[in-house]
Amino acid sequence: MLRAESETLEIRTRGRGMHDFTREVEAWLRGQKAQSGLLTLFVQHTSASLLIQENADPDVQADLERFFARLVEDGDPLFAHDAEGPDDMPSHIRAALTQTSLSVPVVDGRPTLGTWQGIYLYEHRTAPHVRRVVLSYVGT
Amino acid sequence: MLRAESETLEIRTRGRGMHDFTREVEAWLRGQKAQSGLLTLFVQHTSASLLIQENADPDVQADLERFFARLVEDGDPLFAHDAEGPDDMPSHIRAALTQTSLSVPVVDGRPTLGTWQGIYLYEHRTAPHVRRVVLSYVGT
Amino acid sequence: MLRAESETLEIRTRGRGMHDFTREVEAWLRGQKAQSGLLTLFVQHTSASLLIQENADPDVQADLERFFARLVEDGDPLFAHDAEGPDDMPSHIRAALTQTSLSVPVVDGRPTLGTWQGIYLYEHRTAPHVRRVVLSYVGT
Repeated sequence: MLRAESETLEIRTRGRGMHDFTREVEAWLRGQKAQSGLLTLFVQHTSASLLIQENADPDVQADLERFFARLVEDGDPLFAHDAEGPDDMPSHIRAALTQTSLSVPVVDGRPTLGTWQGIYLYEHRTAPHVRRVVLSYVGT
Repeated sequence: MLRAESETLEIRTRGRGMHDFTREVEAWLRGQKAQSGLLTLFVQHTSASLLIQENADPDVQADLERFFARLVEDGDPLFAHDAEGPDDMPSHIRAALTQTSLSVPVVDGRPTLGTWQGIYLYEHRTAPHVRRVVLSYVGT
Repeated sequence: MLRAESETLEIRTRGRGMHDFTREVEAWLRGQKAQSGLLTLFVQHTSASLLIQENADPDVQADLERFFARLVEDGDPLFAHDAEGPDDMPSHIRAALTQTSLSVPVVDGRPTLGTWQGIYLYEHRTAPHVRRVVLSYVGT
């Protein structure tokens, strides 16, 4: 018999960068005694986003950040929306270019991540924030 | 007992830009008497896309559009596919860089959007179009 | 009565480029005797990704590839992570800019794709690879 469950995680970021929260997600599924179904993650912000990326070499995260910093320059005079500072509008654009929601099939109670995949919250603002991610599970 | 429902919305765009259709989505969930589950949106086009973005300051939408217009230039001679005009191939690329599908957990009959989040159809063609978005709900 | 099913597809790529696997996905749904629900695709790699794009004019795929090759240059000295070659880090970035998961509503046993939409695996590495995509279905 299928069921639908959800919960909201709060994640404290240390400012711009990627935060791996794969373990919290796996622990939540275990607590739900999930078997087979679909896990969905949804971030309730438009200046932080979700990303599944390589979790082996920390250079990957540093390179991703350097790429986005060059692609979407803080303080670019193109942007009118700068009420919260030079990183305000670039954060919205970085979020638009990555993900607000992610879905991962669940088999035998675990998300079917590949060997080198981790689930990341990508904080785009330079200052630390508390971010909310809604977890949803539909399955047995 | 879980159930699966779906419906197709038609959205008339006014040409390039973001169209907020959060209210239509919320109204559909109310009509379904949805309680807890998962909402998925899917756009049936490759030159329009979906995006969850800030709905407070209209400058955010204007800045996003200016950013994409600079990143993916209309009429760029790089592109061979221009049968429908200089905005044809750039529209496909903008769609690839944003979302074709979005999923949002539903709790107490409402999508769990953050305070400042709206659900947008992003029309990338310069001319007005009628766009189809499939809504799917799985839950109680 | 809803149920949850899943399976893993193996896709052999021929190196960088888009691989249409819409037919395999449709065949799997038929084999499941799916009626109404939600299909989710998840790629278990961070240097290949998923994309729904135009399937009519092959120029669209060539133009998309040319755009990404220019946006994320192979061998860019910005990148520290190059253990597997000049296309290593660019592949992770291309994957971050496109999709790791995609969801498509299913009606009458078929994914509700638009007329010109195909489901693609986008291989970002220049060498051929075997890629794994997990298919998940929740529905009747």
